[in-house]
Amino acid sequence: MGTDTTAKAAVTVLGLGNLGRAVAAGLLRDGHPTTVWNRTPGRADALAAEGAAVAATVAEAVAASDLVIAVVVDHPALDAVLDAADGAFAGRVLVNVTSGSPDLARKAAARIAGQGGTYIDAAVLAVPETLGTPDATILFSGDPEAYAAHRDSLDLLGPGRHVGAAPETASVYDVAVLAGMYGMFGGFFQSVALAESSGIAAAEITDVLVTWLAGAAAVLPQFAREIDAGDYDTDVSTLNINQWGIAAILAAGKAQGVAFDSLTPLKDIIDRQVAEGHGGASLSRAIESIRAEAQ
Amino acid sequence: MGTDTTAKAAVTVLGLGNLGRAVAAGLLRDGHPTTVWNRTPGRADALAAEGAAVAATVAEAVAASDLVIAVVVDHPALDAVLDAADGAFAGRVLVNVTSGSPDLARKAAARIAGQGGTYIDAAVLAVPETLGTPDATILFSGDPEAYAAHRDSLDLLGPGRHVGAAPETASVYDVAVLAGMYGMFGGFFQSVALAESSGIAAAEITDVLVTWLAGAAAVLPQFAREIDAGDYDTDVSTLNINQWGIAAILAAGKAQGVAFDSLTPLKDIIDRQVAEGHGGASLSRAIESIRAEAQ
Repeated sequence: MGTDTTAKAAVTVLGLGNLGRAVAAGLLRDGHPTTVWNRTPGRADALAAEGAAVAATVAEAVAASDLVIAVVVDHPALDAVLDAADGAFAGRVLVNVTSGSPDLARKAAARIAGQGGTYIDAAVLAVPETLGTPDATILFSGDPEAYAAHRDSLDLLGPGRHVGAAPETASVYDVAVLAGMYGMFGGFFQSVALAESSGIAAAEITDVLVTWLAGAAAVLPQFAREIDAGDYDTDVSTLNINQWGIAAILAAGKAQGVAFDSLTPLKDIIDRQVAEGHGGASLSRAIESIRAEAQ
Repeated sequence: MGTDTTAKAAVTVLGLGNLGRAVAAGLLRDGHPTTVWNRTPGRADALAAEGAAVAATVAEAVAASDLVIAVVVDHPALDAVLDAADGAFAGRVLVNVTSGSPDLARKAAARIAGQGGTYIDAAVLAVPETLGTPDATILFSGDPEAYAAHRDSLDLLGPGRHVGAAPETASVYDVAVLAGMYGMFGGFFQSVALAESSGIAAAEITDVLVTWLAGAAAVLPQFAREIDAGDYDTDVSTLNINQWGIAAILAAGKAQGVAFDSLTPLKDIIDRQVAEGHGGASLSRAIESIRAEAQ
């Protein structure tokens, strides 16, 4: 922005698995004074050679920087870190990259607040190889001012987006996106099982499937607009058409002896919508049956 | 190929829904003498104005061309067409674009053979708007010589591929690819339901999800290679990691009050693989539990 470059902010990284090491290495490359800690110390050797300070304890590591990034394996491990910090988070910001359910993000935020610190949840939608490149998307939620204050340090992980002030919002994005991915993976196995039952190799069907999925994914934003507007008028992908299609697939699977059955939950909500008289509406209206269940 | 253009082959189209009309219009544009028939005659008017001959009966329509493309709504409708043909398919080739299960393709092939005709199954992986463009993929199976003889006429629908000599193979590709798509759609609804439970709009989560799915789809060919080779060595996406991931998502869904549950079938086969001692193997090894069930 035309201002002089200033000294880079100090950052601490807790947890040196694949992702934690990639984060610390990126900080060092960008010139940040970087302190690292790992439950088992050997993991820090290569980073120490690149200039990282290796802390002997969590409390020492947290005390070294205003910004602390935790990349531990799960929330029990995060709890152990918070226990060991022994109040050191007072006046500091914890960015929690640990995946977990939204209620665990809320609990961690409360624990940090109890130490007088500020919690920011991060969802890294990237593999370690793409960290720091435009292919990584990092979502943050929690205190907007703390995020803004540390944005320069956090942006080097990849294009960052603050998605909400509630501590759990990034975590919700994380689990929701992974849920969508596992749906696609379930469909992949369903597809391969059907193909193999007729002697078609996995690579052959996958070649066709990947192209088809790219086209089908392009309709999801239209479904999303219909859902947000509550307006399910369509002359393309109606519930009637899809009721017929998914039933034909389940019948084919049964006839071919494929026992895996990942599509019945979707068939059930389509059937319910059609039974309620909405067969001419868009497939996206299936969301209404899920909402009804949730209430 | 440097040869002179010759007169285009005559083609008959049976069934004038959206797809059938698009096929007939494409044939007319390409200069094929085109005969059309539809159960309810009004649908043919616009095509007649473009030069199509409108047959009064199925038998008359079939008799008009060596190549007959059936684009009727379902296999009962196809059966009605074969009844009405009254033996007219003798010496002719039927290309069946009707979607249905593989066993229905086998039955239709037997009926055509019984009339002395040749059956080719077609799976149109396209919406009517993309027919005749490189975005349409058309898969054919059945008699390879009959396919080769009519390839010039069939190619104008889009890039065609002959995927096998068995009559049902194209149909298997069709249902397998659609199964994969419905898996992705189920994941989409799961994702939106989770997001909405925390006040995130469908359009917001879908924006992130579509990007993520494109990246995740890129691993499917690797999974397919592992499956075909029966070699599940990996240091990336192990069953252990995914067992943890999918359990976290199901727990988050439960905690957020989302009752839709499309991921449990996939979780079950991951759990079974891990219980059998394969936690360090690739997620793709889940296919082994599906095969075991199918046997």
